[in-house]
Amino acid sequence: MVDLYIMRHGQSTANRDNIFTGWSDVALTTQGVDQAKVAGQKLAAANVHFTQVHTSYLRRAIQTANIVLEELNQLYLPLHKSWRLNERHYGALRGMNKDEAKAEFGAWQVHQWRRSYVAVPPLLPTTEAKRQYPLGLEPRGESLAMASARLLPYWQDVIAPELRQGHNQLIVAHGSTLRALIKYLEQIDDADIMQVEVDNGSPIHYQLDDQLKILKKEFV
Amino acid sequence: MVDLYIMRHGQSTANRDNIFTGWSDVALTTQGVDQAKVAGQKLAAANVHFTQVHTSYLRRAIQTANIVLEELNQLYLPLHKSWRLNERHYGALRGMNKDEAKAEFGAWQVHQWRRSYVAVPPLLPTTEAKRQYPLGLEPRGESLAMASARLLPYWQDVIAPELRQGHNQLIVAHGSTLRALIKYLEQIDDADIMQVEVDNGSPIHYQLDDQLKILKKEFV
Repeated sequence: MVDLYIMRHGQSTANRDNIFTGWSDVALTTQGVDQAKVAGQKLAAANVHFTQVHTSYLRRAIQTANIVLEELNQLYLPLHKSWRLNERHYGALRGMNKDEAKAEFGAWQVHQWRRSYVAVPPLLPTTEAKRQYPLGLEPRGESLAMASARLLPYWQDVIAPELRQGHNQLIVAHGSTLRALIKYLEQIDDADIMQVEVDNGSPIHYQLDDQLKILKKEFV
Repeated sequence: MVDLYIMRHGQSTANRDNIFTGWSDVALTTQGVDQAKVAGQKLAAANVHFTQVHTSYLRRAIQTANIVLEELNQLYLPLHKSWRLNERHYGALRGMNKDEAKAEFGAWQVHQWRRSYVAVPPLLPTTEAKRQYPLGLEPRGESLAMASARLLPYWQDVIAPELRQGHNQLIVAHGSTLRALIKYLEQIDDADIMQVEVDNGSPIHYQLDDQLKILKKEFV
């Protein structure tokens, strides 16, 4: 048996302001910092000993992970950062208020972009080619399926092998990439994943067997 | 040519209170946080692009490194943590006020313990065997020479190979371990290292050639 904990970052300025974000690098709000502290205190109370912690390249997730590590009094734990854990890339919707998007594109279309597995948001005309991202791999926009495809290699190559060695893992990531991971772990249908949401700063605990089958799931 | 930056953490509560610290895991003061921010801003102004950042297992250094990364707007950079970069272990002096130590042991002896290369502080009766440290390697107290001996493998195996590939590196560590590293890099005599001190939150820049010989040293 091994313990996997996954959690979404605390509230960001974009969450607060109801704005599509994706790879935009927004900070936590004060409320988001507090959510991260409470999550860290809950994990400390659970008395779980993590071997590694994983997060994205985005500051809202990294800040949350560091706050959790401080609350655990285990800031020394290795914190691995990967662009593969980044939020789904929202393409040209990035920076747009969600209500304004509904007014422009209609509520049904916006709901599809937000919750469906395959809907691709309007793409950016070009990628930005920032230094930290692998050359040519920065997306112009992603469906949840596309985000899942670049997320799963990190699960398969990095996290799953650690879990199979009995090393408890913590993932601090994003609403959409955690939905993609939950879909994969729980084998949820493309249609049913529309109902799944992940709250800010609320850890989910999976107890897994040595084949990484789920023995228990609980909200911490 | 490659750039190495080394810096000591910002002021800790133990620095403020004039207390021997070593491996005790004390936090930054508000002044220490501010020193870390200023250092980060200076490094941002220097426009250096780091490939890796290295720090110890101690929170005052990890917190400083994370603050610097935030100021650089590069929180995504890999931050490697190693017990080999920990401060020199002060043994039974840990937690003792430095003036009280002078009263008890005399100013000359305390100066030797603080600044000489070979003086070993009074040892702890046993090690503490904390989870994060390699079994049996947690010291009961270290001279600067002993700290240097466990620091240098990390330099040789991790940092120097990156520098030789032209990857700029930042080390955020501690007063004594940075003295040991400076002694090694600058080939300073055992006697002369007594004069070297490293200030809190003040980066030092070494420009190195491809054999890691020093071309230039400057205080940032």
